[in-house]
Amino acid sequence: MNSKITTAELKLRHDKIRALMSANNIGAVLISTNTNIYYCAGRVFNGFVYIPAEGETLFFVRRPAGLTDKNVIYIKKPEQITEELSKLGITLPENVALELDRISFSDTQRLTKALSIEKPLNASPLISSARAVKTAVEIELIKEAGVHHCNSYKRIPSLFRKGMTDIELQTEIEYDLRKEGCLGLFRVAGESMESFMGHVITGDNADNPSPYDFAMGGAGMDESLPMGCNGSTIEEGSTVMIDMNGNFNGYMTDITRTYGLHLTDAHTLKAHQLSVDIHKALIRFIKPGVAAKDAYLLAQQMVEEAGETDYFMGHRQKAGFIGHGLGIEINEWPVLAPRSKHIFEEGNVIAIEPKFVIPGVGAAGIENTYVVTAEGLECITPLPEDIIELK
Amino acid sequence: MNSKITTAELKLRHDKIRALMSANNIGAVLISTNTNIYYCAGRVFNGFVYIPAEGETLFFVRRPAGLTDKNVIYIKKPEQITEELSKLGITLPENVALELDRISFSDTQRLTKALSIEKPLNASPLISSARAVKTAVEIELIKEAGVHHCNSYKRIPSLFRKGMTDIELQTEIEYDLRKEGCLGLFRVAGESMESFMGHVITGDNADNPSPYDFAMGGAGMDESLPMGCNGSTIEEGSTVMIDMNGNFNGYMTDITRTYGLHLTDAHTLKAHQLSVDIHKALIRFIKPGVAAKDAYLLAQQMVEEAGETDYFMGHRQKAGFIGHGLGIEINEWPVLAPRSKHIFEEGNVIAIEPKFVIPGVGAAGIENTYVVTAEGLECITPLPEDIIELK
Repeated sequence: MNSKITTAELKLRHDKIRALMSANNIGAVLISTNTNIYYCAGRVFNGFVYIPAEGETLFFVRRPAGLTDKNVIYIKKPEQITEELSKLGITLPENVALELDRISFSDTQRLTKALSIEKPLNASPLISSARAVKTAVEIELIKEAGVHHCNSYKRIPSLFRKGMTDIELQTEIEYDLRKEGCLGLFRVAGESMESFMGHVITGDNADNPSPYDFAMGGAGMDESLPMGCNGSTIEEGSTVMIDMNGNFNGYMTDITRTYGLHLTDAHTLKAHQLSVDIHKALIRFIKPGVAAKDAYLLAQQMVEEAGETDYFMGHRQKAGFIGHGLGIEINEWPVLAPRSKHIFEEGNVIAIEPKFVIPGVGAAGIENTYVVTAEGLECITPLPEDIIELK
Repeated sequence: MNSKITTAELKLRHDKIRALMSANNIGAVLISTNTNIYYCAGRVFNGFVYIPAEGETLFFVRRPAGLTDKNVIYIKKPEQITEELSKLGITLPENVALELDRISFSDTQRLTKALSIEKPLNASPLISSARAVKTAVEIELIKEAGVHHCNSYKRIPSLFRKGMTDIELQTEIEYDLRKEGCLGLFRVAGESMESFMGHVITGDNADNPSPYDFAMGGAGMDESLPMGCNGSTIEEGSTVMIDMNGNFNGYMTDITRTYGLHLTDAHTLKAHQLSVDIHKALIRFIKPGVAAKDAYLLAQQMVEEAGETDYFMGHRQKAGFIGHGLGIEINEWPVLAPRSKHIFEEGNVIAIEPKFVIPGVGAAGIENTYVVTAEGLECITPLPEDIIELK
């Protein structure tokens, strides 16, 4: 179904899910959300991916018309799935799992009724686990996204003009990203999460709390989307933190860089260097088998020792994590948070973003995307890490 | 909580919901999705809006920090709601409704447990009904969005250069929309729905089916987002259909215009004129009390009489509607579809989009946004309706 994602690659992904199904005594999973369909089918369609513990993966498609791939079965409504399965001599097992963390209560009721499922199991954590450990092809796609994402970031200083507002600069960056091939859509998991194409925050707007569970806040341009730039002019002595969308091929990278206009504030420079140093320490620390929470605690300890706790991950409102997995969505597993139960595995792709908010100046720090390899972290967003001077 | 949406306006909205609660024997609704929170609070926050059948609306807020409005109660988790209510001497009624069409099965389970709700009722249809009939303030906001949306559409011909691809033109339009004040985010209801900033489709790409339930398709730039432009060059003799995002203030308008490069195909010109004529007929036909399905049937009849059924609302794959309500999201009630049960009411805001796909040429037709007034339809996206020549 996809030019880049072969049948063999899809089988690898299905087998990863099957291994987790077996460990959780699940007879079949039925997947219906766009991101998990994309993961399991290599393309988004409207319908269902059926993965049995034993037997072939089937694609029940409502739309688009015209897919001719093997194992594609057209249906108009989920009620037809049982019937189509029985035509193939397949009986739905008892222990079916649905994406209960994602699909609505009403859709769950409809599906369980249509498929006579007595009590659905939850497929969501299992698929999140599978997706957390990227395949070689996924890592290749993420690295490709990283190259384009970096290309665009390198041009940011050339987009700046004195007297610009945050939203003006953000609009120029969006335009540049799109011309570089960014798909625009910023996929984020969770009913309460949304973002257009990322955030540009300058000065004290960094200290405006937002409703969203991103690392930084910002008041936003409108109460309907209260996050990110708020129309502030980029002033001398302030920072501009830029954290913009890296979705170039269905997979994304995450990059933040901090920029400054005649920035001399010693506290801000110190906090920024601390962010860079935390990255260095975590590059040495994180490897397969290390607990994600210990990575958080190491960063926290460095911040405490430097006396910067009040400014770490926000000031008036704080984010509860310093990093996160990413891939198809910006917020995948593992999560680098104090109570995270995740253990790093080879193939995780994570963004690390220790950031600070300095009142009167703005946000400081950097974010890179790393692949967890057998040897440790491989940075796939290599760009200068100091505060970049805007002219 | 909002500069434009006053406490009196919010009360009006809550009272509309209360009237529907009363008709459905619902004791309280608990709202937790971003769009409905925005509707009920005038801003997005992370938390819950509690609307009892009798008594004051309460805002249980997790994030952002610092809201000081009346009736804001800070909580860390939903389990605290019962406790906070009892501090105010309020007992949760038995018949509580949650947004069951929107919130996940897992979140529903957590909420029902946290609040000891035996069997939650469904608040989703009720809030959709309330939202379908806009208040005067909402109509003002939508009209304001329409003015900006039209401003940007007027500049589209000036953005075109010969030899451009669809994605190049779309990128220029996005950039122009953002400079006009578009918020970017394109809110669409439904788990299977997503779009970046709308669609630009040219030539035979209009005939590529997409998984999404929009009026038109398009192959997209990537299998992860298979919709809209696919990198085709805009050729002489082809049409370009442009249907781009009109979210300027949390409320949006919807506009489609068709453009052509030396377009002479008689069939396409006829189909386009038929779309314009359907608009004219529906402007005369739709008024409060008319069934939405009858509007669909009238359009369908005109298309049949013109012999254009094969090309109506798609060719290889067809959309099942010719129009839809809109406001905070692009797909609200009422729906203009053959089995729609909606009856038009004063205050509905609808987009009408009879469109055609002509093989070898592309898509044709227009879309406007209308307010349903006591007298009939008021067009709030007045722009030239003929096919616009690109040079």
